[in-house]
Amino acid sequence: MALASGVRVPARALPRPCAAEALWSTTLGRREPAAGGGGDGERRFGSQRVLVEPDAAAGVAVMKFRNPPVNSLSLELLTELVISLEKLENDKTFRGVILTSDCPRVFSADLDLTEMCGRNPAHYAEYWKAMQELWLRTYLSSLVLVAAINVGLALPAGSLPRGGLCHRPACDCRVLADNPKYHIGLDETLLGIVAPLWLKDTCVNTIGHRASEQALQLGLLFPPAEALQVGLVDQVVPEDQVLSVALSAMAQWLTIPDHTRQLTKNMMRKATADHLLRQRDTDIQNFVSFICRDSIQKSLQVYLEKLRQRKG
Amino acid sequence: MALASGVRVPARALPRPCAAEALWSTTLGRREPAAGGGGDGERRFGSQRVLVEPDAAAGVAVMKFRNPPVNSLSLELLTELVISLEKLENDKTFRGVILTSDCPRVFSADLDLTEMCGRNPAHYAEYWKAMQELWLRTYLSSLVLVAAINVGLALPAGSLPRGGLCHRPACDCRVLADNPKYHIGLDETLLGIVAPLWLKDTCVNTIGHRASEQALQLGLLFPPAEALQVGLVDQVVPEDQVLSVALSAMAQWLTIPDHTRQLTKNMMRKATADHLLRQRDTDIQNFVSFICRDSIQKSLQVYLEKLRQRKG
Amino acid sequence: MALASGVRVPARALPRPCAAEALWSTTLGRREPAAGGGGDGERRFGSQRVLVEPDAAAGVAVMKFRNPPVNSLSLELLTELVISLEKLENDKTFRGVILTSDCPRVFSADLDLTEMCGRNPAHYAEYWKAMQELWLRTYLSSLVLVAAINVGLALPAGSLPRGGLCHRPACDCRVLADNPKYHIGLDETLLGIVAPLWLKDTCVNTIGHRASEQALQLGLLFPPAEALQVGLVDQVVPEDQVLSVALSAMAQWLTIPDHTRQLTKNMMRKATADHLLRQRDTDIQNFVSFICRDSIQKSLQVYLEKLRQRKG
Repeated sequence: MALASGVRVPARALPRPCAAEALWSTTLGRREPAAGGGGDGERRFGSQRVLVEPDAAAGVAVMKFRNPPVNSLSLELLTELVISLEKLENDKTFRGVILTSDCPRVFSADLDLTEMCGRNPAHYAEYWKAMQELWLRTYLSSLVLVAAINVGLALPAGSLPRGGLCHRPACDCRVLADNPKYHIGLDETLLGIVAPLWLKDTCVNTIGHRASEQALQLGLLFPPAEALQVGLVDQVVPEDQVLSVALSAMAQWLTIPDHTRQLTKNMMRKATADHLLRQRDTDIQNFVSFICRDSIQKSLQVYLEKLRQRKG
Repeated sequence: MALASGVRVPARALPRPCAAEALWSTTLGRREPAAGGGGDGERRFGSQRVLVEPDAAAGVAVMKFRNPPVNSLSLELLTELVISLEKLENDKTFRGVILTSDCPRVFSADLDLTEMCGRNPAHYAEYWKAMQELWLRTYLSSLVLVAAINVGLALPAGSLPRGGLCHRPACDCRVLADNPKYHIGLDETLLGIVAPLWLKDTCVNTIGHRASEQALQLGLLFPPAEALQVGLVDQVVPEDQVLSVALSAMAQWLTIPDHTRQLTKNMMRKATADHLLRQRDTDIQNFVSFICRDSIQKSLQVYLEKLRQRKG
Repeated sequence: MALASGVRVPARALPRPCAAEALWSTTLGRREPAAGGGGDGERRFGSQRVLVEPDAAAGVAVMKFRNPPVNSLSLELLTELVISLEKLENDKTFRGVILTSDCPRVFSADLDLTEMCGRNPAHYAEYWKAMQELWLRTYLSSLVLVAAINVGLALPAGSLPRGGLCHRPACDCRVLADNPKYHIGLDETLLGIVAPLWLKDTCVNTIGHRASEQALQLGLLFPPAEALQVGLVDQVVPEDQVLSVALSAMAQWLTIPDHTRQLTKNMMRKATADHLLRQRDTDIQNFVSFICRDSIQKSLQVYLEKLRQRKG
């Protein structure tokens, strides 16, 4: 078992740290104007952090995340993503969704470290359950999901990088902007965080066993050309063509009858999803007991403190 | 489960449609003179549709399919292939078999749609059982099997293509003619037909999980260079060298002691074959109930009708 | 099951054949001066056949095998390797080990055929158990293991080659000398020996299912460029840089917190190791009954005799 020890963790409630990354990243990115809840009436809908632009005629919606400054997967963003996906799945108008970022030129990250540091075990459990939920909903989605990865993970000199593998391999197709500053991968290992079993399974399915051993143990982050070669993404295209190429890919996927495609997708992915479903609670317990360790909390605090100092 | 629903299908017998593909393809290919049952006495044997040319000294037989016009896997061809393979396996003279087509310059296809459309459930069950049987016999064959793919799937403009992945990945070695008009893959998805679990397993073993997700969901057909790159075939050679290269490959395989090679092959493939053997009846039931659906029958009828019109 | 038949083998004790390879190889390699047991006091330690050069400051030890003339894995070498690895694992000073050969310019082999020919079943069982033990200890090692493959398997014209895949894929990283005379792979098939299930599993994890089918059935030996392409090694570098590149790779692996790396490694490898642990005795029985067959013994005797004649 990856996250080891089933030891019960005593509940404890630490004060919430200030949102270190938020402070830090604003200098690096542009703050977007806050997105309204409702958008432009019929043309757009969504929530605080997830904007959905439907193209009902095409049967496609573009779903944009906007969790400034770094689009990290906070509990709120996770929840809104799951709800938005669920809404689109239940609306027969839609056959496919493009997932993309609405925070251009800022950092993109997966895990939100502030959700994992200085909180209580109940919070960690809630956070991890939401993370599982997003993965399950994405991995088994009946919709065609295409990731238009327009903002990678740019690496400021001297910073510890953080990855963005989590939900993307779960998409059916991934188009990455060809910007040498962008890197994708799963580098939580560098912070002492072990990838959960289901993320490992996804990684093995996507890039193979041997490449996963190296990528997950070394916390490798791949620039676009290498990400393409190893199979983390399907296409690398000029930055301004990411969305149009994603739409073309979507058009190809939509030539397949939905029912056949969904059965085939399910056949390919069911075993991997079942692997998590069989041990969902254990996976949460493992995460909570792991993240509650003094050594891990200390490591996260040091890292978040560095971000704060960079800002201050 | 890929083919879903275990619902029992009421028996029904529809009139057999005319052999649409036969009508269609004769204009595109040359009709071969009908093969005699027995061939040239000692030198050749075989059946109506399978010609076996033995080279007893080399321990190798060349097995040629001839099911004009398109070599599709009809129930009769399936049955004769299985019988011929069984015969060769039981004859200690032979250590290896080259599988190739005797219908040059015509289309080659796997599934025979006329066996799957407008028949009764008992027929579908029989057809699918024969398909499983060919796969099992090929995949676990104690003989060295080399596919000399001299006729790929040429695509007339505007036609819906149909694939030819089914029995080839089950061979030990596959040599493909380098003709840009040839395409191989499994494109039944385009007709609404889902690949069975055992074909999915073979595909994953051959080209990996991620490539299989795309190939099976999108019904991808690969031209020779791409088929080589993704791993669907082992060699791509000029069209007139396919058989000689296949014979060279066979010679290399025959340098290995049979017993060791067979044990190694069985070790590599047993788990995948067992996966089917454990649920053979379920797989048949799934296929029958799936193919009996009105929507699937309609889709097949429309496709076959198109072929007829192309001809008419 | 790979090695078939669970038939009990009657014990029999054949006279030990002379060490044919030893006679043979001395003309081809340089005999190294016999290594002392203890080495240079604090700076080196080790056993007759395994020399350990610790760099306590770096947390790294270089472990050199020296089993002249061909570094084949005799029972003694296997035992000393396991003991040395165990010692280093229990010494908190060390975080990583470089595995390399101390028999430059001589042949390197894995299986020691003299351990498998003309002995009694109890000896074969002991030998195979030691082989399993080395694999398990290497594959699940808590240390970072980097293989610096400075001596490949050079192939004298006309000889039957023998491989060297066994313990290397179990390392975390493998650096191979770019010498076109070196070949690596697992070619016991050519001698009639079937790879055990656990070696097959490792091979599939390392180079994938399809490539493993070919490599294991055909007993393929890969020159450096091909070994790199298929994924048997991670880097191919000029011969005199093997150790320095291995040390650089080690430095990268040591940037990862040990605990996280170990948990990740275990997550990636536990299922494969468990596969062996569940059937360790069966695997030994299979090996013993297989190797005791008259046909296998004869084949090994013929091969060893050839080596003797080459010498004589």
